[in-house]
Amino acid sequence: MGLGFSRDCIAYLPIFMMMTPTVTTFQSLAQQYQTALLEDVLPFWLKYSLDEEKGGYFTCLDRQGICFDTDKFIWLQNRQVWLFAWLYRQLASHPLVSPQDLTTWLETARHGANFLAQYGRDETGNWYFSLDRDGRPLVQPYNIFSDCFAAMAFSQYAQVTGEETAKAIALQAYHNVLRRQDNPKGQYSKAYPGTRPLKSLAVPMILANLTLEMDWLLEPDLLESVLTSTIQEVMGQFLDPQSQILYENVAPDGSLVNCFEGRLLNPGHGIEAMWFMMAIAERRQDRELINRAVEVVLRILDYAWDEKYGGIFYFLDAQGYPPQQLEWDQKLWWVHLETLVALVMGYRLTENWDCWQWYQKVHDYAWSKFADPEYGEWFGYLNRQGEVLLNLKGGKWKGCFHVPRALFLCWQNFDKLAAGSD
Amino acid sequence: MGLGFSRDCIAYLPIFMMMTPTVTTFQSLAQQYQTALLEDVLPFWLKYSLDEEKGGYFTCLDRQGICFDTDKFIWLQNRQVWLFAWLYRQLASHPLVSPQDLTTWLETARHGANFLAQYGRDETGNWYFSLDRDGRPLVQPYNIFSDCFAAMAFSQYAQVTGEETAKAIALQAYHNVLRRQDNPKGQYSKAYPGTRPLKSLAVPMILANLTLEMDWLLEPDLLESVLTSTIQEVMGQFLDPQSQILYENVAPDGSLVNCFEGRLLNPGHGIEAMWFMMAIAERRQDRELINRAVEVVLRILDYAWDEKYGGIFYFLDAQGYPPQQLEWDQKLWWVHLETLVALVMGYRLTENWDCWQWYQKVHDYAWSKFADPEYGEWFGYLNRQGEVLLNLKGGKWKGCFHVPRALFLCWQNFDKLAAGSD
Repeated sequence: MGLGFSRDCIAYLPIFMMMTPTVTTFQSLAQQYQTALLEDVLPFWLKYSLDEEKGGYFTCLDRQGICFDTDKFIWLQNRQVWLFAWLYRQLASHPLVSPQDLTTWLETARHGANFLAQYGRDETGNWYFSLDRDGRPLVQPYNIFSDCFAAMAFSQYAQVTGEETAKAIALQAYHNVLRRQDNPKGQYSKAYPGTRPLKSLAVPMILANLTLEMDWLLEPDLLESVLTSTIQEVMGQFLDPQSQILYENVAPDGSLVNCFEGRLLNPGHGIEAMWFMMAIAERRQDRELINRAVEVVLRILDYAWDEKYGGIFYFLDAQGYPPQQLEWDQKLWWVHLETLVALVMGYRLTENWDCWQWYQKVHDYAWSKFADPEYGEWFGYLNRQGEVLLNLKGGKWKGCFHVPRALFLCWQNFDKLAAGSD
Repeated sequence: MGLGFSRDCIAYLPIFMMMTPTVTTFQSLAQQYQTALLEDVLPFWLKYSLDEEKGGYFTCLDRQGICFDTDKFIWLQNRQVWLFAWLYRQLASHPLVSPQDLTTWLETARHGANFLAQYGRDETGNWYFSLDRDGRPLVQPYNIFSDCFAAMAFSQYAQVTGEETAKAIALQAYHNVLRRQDNPKGQYSKAYPGTRPLKSLAVPMILANLTLEMDWLLEPDLLESVLTSTIQEVMGQFLDPQSQILYENVAPDGSLVNCFEGRLLNPGHGIEAMWFMMAIAERRQDRELINRAVEVVLRILDYAWDEKYGGIFYFLDAQGYPPQQLEWDQKLWWVHLETLVALVMGYRLTENWDCWQWYQKVHDYAWSKFADPEYGEWFGYLNRQGEVLLNLKGGKWKGCFHVPRALFLCWQNFDKLAAGSD
């Protein structure tokens, strides 16, 4: 692979269980995440994912990085543009990042942005779900998440480049999302109108994250009002006050619905939503919201941790019935990475000891099972027992996004913790 | 449970591996399937699935038969009507089946047929995908398989009862299928037109089975021409002549397409399609088609059998890449039951020794892993290791269909084998 560093420093550190963390602990963890990001994960995508011939990125990469399918999934294309533009901004003045690295990152973002600006949208500006290698549309704009990730990508990219066309694309995509949020699937919705209306946690959750991303482009009043309403919806409607369970789907008024979709829990999604809440709360210095979000993360881990094999289940039924999802017991990379982010952020913001204990447990599991010291990057899909289920580093749903984003965020949080403990 | 018989005769018989079968072998297997059908599986559904209050059937039944969700899925509702009407016709003069049993089966079919005739269709006669307990539509008629199973159900039911309205419903549903076969998802299709057209094995496969079911209602010319074209499509287009691999999706002209859907293999589906082919071929006395279908079954088993844990994989990629389906390595009840049917039918029709060897291997796996001697009926979903993944006997996709249909067909085939060996 020639990544030019010893993988030993990344792989499985069964650190410090139950120990009180010191400044050295935090520094060593910050170092671990930084090394993994800069010397393993980014080089992997830079080396294997660029389609130099047709533009855009390959995301279906096997364990070794070899492309096994050339279709281009809009979520992942946009997420990779976002990631490189975001890291460029975050690390523009970091001593460890060379001007050449920054140029490479910017060119990588541009490589995807050009392809997407040319091929990603239909004639009315809605973002397709997927394209073939050449950019011809394969799957229609059947939901709004392609538009969400387009707004995020082009917002970051416009901030880096100052390009007006990128800014216009970002705003168009953002307004697509706002316009379609109450009927996200449009004509492709199979639900019969009126019998059992449900709304999905994904919508306010993504709006919270997206709106923070777009803060530089939005009127302050619009920004604050969207943030306030997403907090109210997530914490006041999807979170059940009695059980403190965060549901994936509820009735439009927030009441619980006793059906498969209504009983569905998606622990990783819930935990990710909670760190979005913490990010908004930190910005607003809302300590109560921070504390509530941390409590919900801990509550989710209590019911979603697999006591038998370790790891966090993918789906559960709130009443313990068999879920519809056959993959319910699998262990997914993003679930564990978002949990690491939530726990380190929660610990930094609250010093809640349970956060630290859970952090160690999840760190131990995630770094020993998902990271691949042999070929780089992280496996995406493990079976319940923790064995590799799909021998890949990228596919239709896994691209250059959750791994590097989480590695960066954990690095930054541990850096702050180290600085705070000095 | 009080099923009134010893379960020992049903559970796991690790019989006769590699032995030459005798008339006693066939008689004992016929007996095993007959007992399982009449004394275990039918009583389970008769006891637990009828919604006496609102009509139709409960299909979401936990291991013990307790209903955990009351939604009514049209595939499963129609399949249960079909099953009871079909068994009524098949066993109307069988000495072991009492007039009271027959009356119960007919009433059970009627119970579902009345509910479905009242609530199952939209105003243009298309069949919904699901209803709530009261019969209010939940999910739109987004594919044609609801109509397929409605045609099968009402055709059988009309044959038993002679009711003209049932006959009219069957014909309407059959013509829905013929009309929509080239665009089965209609407005709900997410595929962008023209970029990469694909057609699915499911359509000709279900048409083959459905058309045989409707033979009494169709003009002989239409019947034979539909059967001929389904044979040509399945054996001439979905089956690759070089590799002898049966694909799940191909281009409209039958050529292979190198994408996730185009590489997808669904071994259970392929094997089920092959026994539909054998059924048509037996009717037409087409020995060449019988032999080809048997060869394809054996070929599928060669590549789809899990050498490590036993059982047949749910999905595979033709080129060995990671499939999109996270549940690819799971072991599903219907896959194994349809394989038992195909193997016993294939052995009866050809005396191919490989069929008999495979039959024993699959029998051994299926009866030891799926059958539940403690609470009756069969588990539906096992993980790769063969452990129960969902603790249920019925759900959104598993109802009163594959288990009893396969038990009956295996029983009948072994009866014929026993008679032929006398």
